[in-house]
Amino acid sequence: MNVVERLTQEMGEIVDTTAETLETARADRSGHRSPGRPLAVVHARTVDDVQRTMRIASATGTGVVVRGAGTGLAGAANAGPGEIVLSTARMDRLVEVRPDDLLAVVEPGILNAALNAQLAEHGVWWAPDPASRDISTVGGNIATGAGGLLCAKYGVVRDAVLGVDLVLADGRLLRLGHRTVKGVTGLDLTSLVIGSEGRLGVVVGATLKLRRLVEGGVCTLTATFASVRQAAAASASVTAAGIQPSIMELMDAGALAAVHALLDLPSPAAGSAQVTIQTDGPAARDDAAHVDALLRAAGGSVAMTADAVEGARLLSIRRAVHPALAALGTTLIEDVAVPRSAMPAMFDEIARIEQAYGISIPTVAHAGDGNLHPNFIFEGDQVPEHIWAAADELFHAAIRLGGTLTGEHGVGTLKSRWLAAELGDDQWRIQRDLVRVFDPQGILNPGKVFVDA
Amino acid sequence: MNVVERLTQEMGEIVDTTAETLETARADRSGHRSPGRPLAVVHARTVDDVQRTMRIASATGTGVVVRGAGTGLAGAANAGPGEIVLSTARMDRLVEVRPDDLLAVVEPGILNAALNAQLAEHGVWWAPDPASRDISTVGGNIATGAGGLLCAKYGVVRDAVLGVDLVLADGRLLRLGHRTVKGVTGLDLTSLVIGSEGRLGVVVGATLKLRRLVEGGVCTLTATFASVRQAAAASASVTAAGIQPSIMELMDAGALAAVHALLDLPSPAAGSAQVTIQTDGPAARDDAAHVDALLRAAGGSVAMTADAVEGARLLSIRRAVHPALAALGTTLIEDVAVPRSAMPAMFDEIARIEQAYGISIPTVAHAGDGNLHPNFIFEGDQVPEHIWAAADELFHAAIRLGGTLTGEHGVGTLKSRWLAAELGDDQWRIQRDLVRVFDPQGILNPGKVFVDA
Repeated sequence: MNVVERLTQEMGEIVDTTAETLETARADRSGHRSPGRPLAVVHARTVDDVQRTMRIASATGTGVVVRGAGTGLAGAANAGPGEIVLSTARMDRLVEVRPDDLLAVVEPGILNAALNAQLAEHGVWWAPDPASRDISTVGGNIATGAGGLLCAKYGVVRDAVLGVDLVLADGRLLRLGHRTVKGVTGLDLTSLVIGSEGRLGVVVGATLKLRRLVEGGVCTLTATFASVRQAAAASASVTAAGIQPSIMELMDAGALAAVHALLDLPSPAAGSAQVTIQTDGPAARDDAAHVDALLRAAGGSVAMTADAVEGARLLSIRRAVHPALAALGTTLIEDVAVPRSAMPAMFDEIARIEQAYGISIPTVAHAGDGNLHPNFIFEGDQVPEHIWAAADELFHAAIRLGGTLTGEHGVGTLKSRWLAAELGDDQWRIQRDLVRVFDPQGILNPGKVFVDA
Repeated sequence: MNVVERLTQEMGEIVDTTAETLETARADRSGHRSPGRPLAVVHARTVDDVQRTMRIASATGTGVVVRGAGTGLAGAANAGPGEIVLSTARMDRLVEVRPDDLLAVVEPGILNAALNAQLAEHGVWWAPDPASRDISTVGGNIATGAGGLLCAKYGVVRDAVLGVDLVLADGRLLRLGHRTVKGVTGLDLTSLVIGSEGRLGVVVGATLKLRRLVEGGVCTLTATFASVRQAAAASASVTAAGIQPSIMELMDAGALAAVHALLDLPSPAAGSAQVTIQTDGPAARDDAAHVDALLRAAGGSVAMTADAVEGARLLSIRRAVHPALAALGTTLIEDVAVPRSAMPAMFDEIARIEQAYGISIPTVAHAGDGNLHPNFIFEGDQVPEHIWAAADELFHAAIRLGGTLTGEHGVGTLKSRWLAAELGDDQWRIQRDLVRVFDPQGILNPGKVFVDA
């Protein structure tokens, strides 16, 4: 009896081998896909389904790719030939909300936005806010260690998870972490799981650290500048003034032009870049007035609103960047992060690489935390060699500026080639050996993140 | 040539075998001590000293206990026969401050308070604020994953470290983490090192995440209540109102009486308990007025001040708890944490255990985050059996309430007996196996945290 027959015998109809399902599981939102279809997709409904699947996978030595909504941008959830897909998308319940303890217990398949809609009724929210929040799962957010637009002020996933329930490769269930704000009993395995991209185990539940809803209104500003360097200097001046916007995004000329084209807006002036800022909390209006003055002093043409609908409209321009660029071709989305003060220098490096390779690299940045998404755009399924070469230069430039390969998307398949260059060989080997403690057979997300030479 | 001779030959005068030094290295601030003196103390001045020491220890299979200022409360830095002490206390430089990037690079031996005094000149601070901050090192704060009084509002060590430089047992140096706010390249080994109590490697440097100094004044309130349960309910009402004090501490009758005795203040009314609260930031006065009303409504007798000197005086009563209890005998300081809403129930459990064992368990709590320090007091060096039994009941009560064994002090030697009970055997074994990846010989802090049965 082969592995699919065993899965079907034990779990029946939740084992899915329809062509469409298998085809979908080959790709995430990076636009890249695995070389072929996986064996089957198991639509787990319970922790027990996950444990049964892992026991069969373990017994047969079959590779398992865990998938939530498949919105990743680094290829970590792409499944290929000979592999089983374990989908936790149907495990989507909000199990418990404790506003007094500022915690919630969830299943991994709940969508980020759906969770926050339910939490709002209790006056609380979960802060991690990836651009994909309407379509990405909390389990996926944890697996990638996601960030988002609000995280300069309100933190990333690492700051917002108290505990994780993890099914190991052999089917055993571990309960990691705490229901308390503080806890230092042994090693912090919860943090180790966050961002581990499916290599350590299957996240089947999480205890999330919540915040009270922010009181007061939100003010939104957009400012257009003649150049990206001017825009970067303007956002640096906001940070230097000690103001903490909830959102501070920067679109360079290429990204801005692509969005305007997608949304059918008049073309922006050539070379112009835009900064989008939101302030919130009791001081939202005062902060916005201060920001307004700083942006004008830096040469910006500013629009400001305290109206929620108009604010959402202004912000929707920024939120349209990914679809706008995807409309231009296949994208390789980079995700470098540098110390905030190095943002202008990183934009200079991008301009240099654009010239050297004769390509355009439309870039959007979370300017509040130094995380940039330069996008390489090309035709077809395969990343051309000169794009890999340009991406390689980009990555090394970020490292030279004190930065990192990936701020929030993860390594997956698309960035594994650079992992050892950032970590160093000694650390790379230790990380790989730590994975083996959790998964000695190496059946969980094989070939992702850590690729043996 | 024995290990001390080899160390001396390589490093000369920084290898210290004087009786007083060796005797001091047997104990931390827990009041407990190892069975005998270690072999030598190496006073490392540089990363190279640390690497040389570890290479010799590795070659000779000698146990190494890393020590900062020796202010731990769980015995993790206590060194015994046959062991080398590696002191990083003299590696105490502030290497770099970047206010624009809100980061600092430090050596591990710098004292928490000394660091913050230097950072203040730049308008920034490092938030972790253990009660020991005047005498504890940043390296020790990282090794224990320390918390403190301010951490309900401003976070614990885990929230405030971007990267760690770690010397492995075999002398290799790893650079973990980032200089950026965001970064998800591979596994989060920085978080794994935080709170690992010297079992994974020697912290020889750290990149710290800073905050801007909080603007506005500080208001301080103390409120006295007829019972600890009333005091716990009052602090719960502050949390429920959505106010976030910077400090919210609770002393029960035993702790309050001990402090009054130490400070030569008039005895408090029998059974009375005290809550100490500080508010800060632009809304400090409004928040304080709101807190004042809530505390009075809960039956408290309240004193409030916006004066810095008077505020420091009120807070000094809380800060004197540890010395006040140490003056009464040898203490076994527990460190349980429970979800905030379970604080009153935990105080009921403490009262029950006091009655059952005919002992007093003076308790102080970080009421803002559910972290309690119940203190067992006894005569002599050895913890009596009935105290261990009472502590055992206390720990299991915390677990039943959804809590944990240690919120901020760590496991060390004093709590290792309960570690597997909280983690479960599977997780305990995985954690121990992870330690072996870093230190296959098991020479780093042997017998601490993980004690093989």
